[in-house]
Formats: sequence, C-alpha cells, structure tokens
Amino acid sequence: MKISGILETCLYAADLQKAANFYTKLPGLQLIAKEDGRHLFFKCGKTMLLIFNPDHTSSEQTDMGGDLIPLHGSRGAGHVAFSVKDDEISLWREFLNDQQIPIESEVNWPNGSVSLYFRDPAGNSLEVVSPKIWKR
Amino acid sequence: MKISGILETCLYAADLQKAANFYTKLPGLQLIAKEDGRHLFFKCGKTMLLIFNPDHTSSEQTDMGGDLIPLHGSRGAGHVAFSVKDDEISLWREFLNDQQIPIESEVNWPNGSVSLYFRDPAGNSLEVVSPKIWKR
Repeated sequence: MKISGILETCLYAADLQKAANFYTKLPGLQLIAKEDGRHLFFKCGKTMLLIFNPDHTSSEQTDMGGDLIPLHGSRGAGHVAFSVKDDEISLWREFLNDQQIPIESEVNWPNGSVSLYFRDPAGNSLEVVSPKIWKR
Repeated sequence: MKISGILETCLYAADLQKAANFYTKLPGLQLIAKEDGRHLFFKCGKTMLLIFNPDHTSSEQTDMGGDLIPLHGSRGAGHVAFSVKDDEISLWREFLNDQQIPIESEVNWPNGSVSLYFRDPAGNSLEVVSPKIWKR
C-alpha cells in the first residue's frame, strides 16, 4: 500500500475566465470540465491540473449526494512545474515569446537542466523543465 | 512540443518540522531534500511534492549562480490528491485511523471511485483516490 504519485495539483485564480484563456494556450493541457465561478479542470498527461476560485471553494462545500468535499482555497502565488522534454526548452522559450508571456527567470541547474519560469494571470509561478532536473 | 504532465506540486507550511513528521509517515513519499526554514522535497512516484515555508519563499529569492528562482508562497488551505490503488482505499482508511489522522470526509463518486480526505498539520486538504476517478 503506497502512494504512486500526484494525481491532482491545484492552483487558485479568482478570475477563471482569464485563467481559461491562459491555460488553454499551453500545449498539452486539455480543458475537460468547468463550472462558472468555481473551477476549471485540465487533463495534463496522466495528471490533473485543477484551478479553483478560492472565494468559492474556501466558503461553499460541494455536496456529492450527501458526501461533502472539504473546504480549501489559498491566496498568494502558488507554484507548479510542468514536465517537458529537455530538448524542447528552446521551443518553449520561442513559444512564450510568441505568446507575449514574459519569461520571469531562466535557471540553469548544476546538472545541466534548464527551467523557464513565467506567471499565470493570477500571479501563480509556473515552470517548464525536464524530469532530468531531479536526477542528480 | 507539449507538457507531458505535472512534475512538481507545491504545498505550503510555516512549520516544516511538523510537516516533516507528518509527510514522512505517508507510505510512498520519500524525503530527498530539506533546508531548515525553507523547504522539504518529497519524491512521490515520478512526481515531486514540494513543501515550502511561504514566509521564506515569498520574500527571499534563491540565487542559483546568478539565476533567480521567482518568489511564490500562498496562505490558506491548498489541495493535493495522491494516486493510490482503488482496492487499497480500505487499507488507507485503516492506516489513517491507526495514525490518528482524522478522515474529514469520504466521498463516493458517481463512477464508483472513493476519495478519503484528511488534513496535514498546516491545514492543507489531502486526498487519496484511484486514477479511476477521472475515467467517467
């Protein structure tokens, strides 16, 4: 019995329309569900990126046939790193530039991996990097 | 060129010692790095769970040889769902009870999946559920 990985990751954004416009532009994210004012759910490989409006999920419990989904919701910049191929970092740099998404920082790690950092409209810090980053 | 999945998920906890005591108890999470007062990094299958002290990461930029890691850090309950085997939910129920970790809610989804929700010491909402939950 053990956890085999992260299944769902959350970020929070009060303006879900702005978030939808932004995240649907990122190649590999597929919007599979949304509820106005509450959430956007993106499939991302075998994992899910859930974007919630914290004003909603921190105050209103969703009732699933009598079972309550616990309250959650944070304020301030969260962080998620997306897994991409090592040799595609230069394509991501071009893509972000083409989309006029500012690259806030580019970090060269001791093992040769490169991370590109950028922000979503809510201010969350996003990163694209190869899984190689954790092989040291 | 596309995102292949979530590589790193973050939660925030001001008391990292309490977080370390808690998360090291969860089968499948392996503590691979820590920095007192700043972070705990857990390997979790092919993904990483990063626990940061938001007081640190929202105010002090880490310098990697001249490359700056952007500021981030949120307050309030975040949420992560861990992937477990469908037929092991009952073992997780027993495990949480044995560890005196209160199960805040148990949700039975329309497709037959079951989620167990519990909290970490910082108040983040954690969930164990099978990937089947997203197959509807």
